[in-house]
Amino acid sequence: MSYFFSKLVNKNFDQAIEDVTDALKSEGFGVLTEIDVKETMKKKIDVDFKKYKIFGACNPHFAYKALTSEDKIGVMLPCNVIVEEHENGEVEVSAVDPVASMKAVENNSLAEIANEVRTKLKGIIENL
Amino acid sequence: MSYFFSKLVNKNFDQAIEDVTDALKSEGFGVLTEIDVKETMKKKIDVDFKKYKIFGACNPHFAYKALTSEDKIGVMLPCNVIVEEHENGEVEVSAVDPVASMKAVENNSLAEIANEVRTKLKGIIENL
Repeated sequence: MSYFFSKLVNKNFDQAIEDVTDALKSEGFGVLTEIDVKETMKKKIDVDFKKYKIFGACNPHFAYKALTSEDKIGVMLPCNVIVEEHENGEVEVSAVDPVASMKAVENNSLAEIANEVRTKLKGIIENL
Repeated sequence: MSYFFSKLVNKNFDQAIEDVTDALKSEGFGVLTEIDVKETMKKKIDVDFKKYKIFGACNPHFAYKALTSEDKIGVMLPCNVIVEEHENGEVEVSAVDPVASMKAVENNSLAEIANEVRTKLKGIIENL
């Protein structure tokens, strides 16, 4: 079982970010957080890392259902999407599979919600 | 297996946030992201939710080791800490157990790192 969905996209890094953000938005997911891993690594521990950004995406309807059925699920929210540029210049976009990340949580209602979100995120990545 | 560590603390909501942020810092974890769930729920879907904040904590040394041993682990970073105020006024602080959230990832080097981070986060919560 993989724990993410990913796709090599024929776009540059910034375009990939713009496109995945738009695709998330059209499915009701806002981007609530953004981490520039390359910049953070350079600043905090002075190492060079490739272009790699982590976006925290959240659909408030699903998040509300998830939080009311499993109070502590905030430790696994939002759902992350990463955009990275490999050494050969290829750009890859990936999204977490919430069914995998929430595998250790035993809650049937939550599992249903995770499945719905999984389908949406999988579709977003496939259609990039 | 639980997927988080948590503790009811004898502090108010804001004090709990300040104290857990300081404790994280003293173990080398910076807070990179912050989501005010109550505010977001009100703004996006007009529902009332209790005070509940999600903080994304990251120790750059561990994150660098994790990312270089498992390229896509960014979909599960940073490690979240939540602070919530229950209806009876009690304040609870919780941290993700990275061993649980990364359970679906098959990578022994990563598992070692997740175990180290687990010990640190568990200690931080216990000592609040």
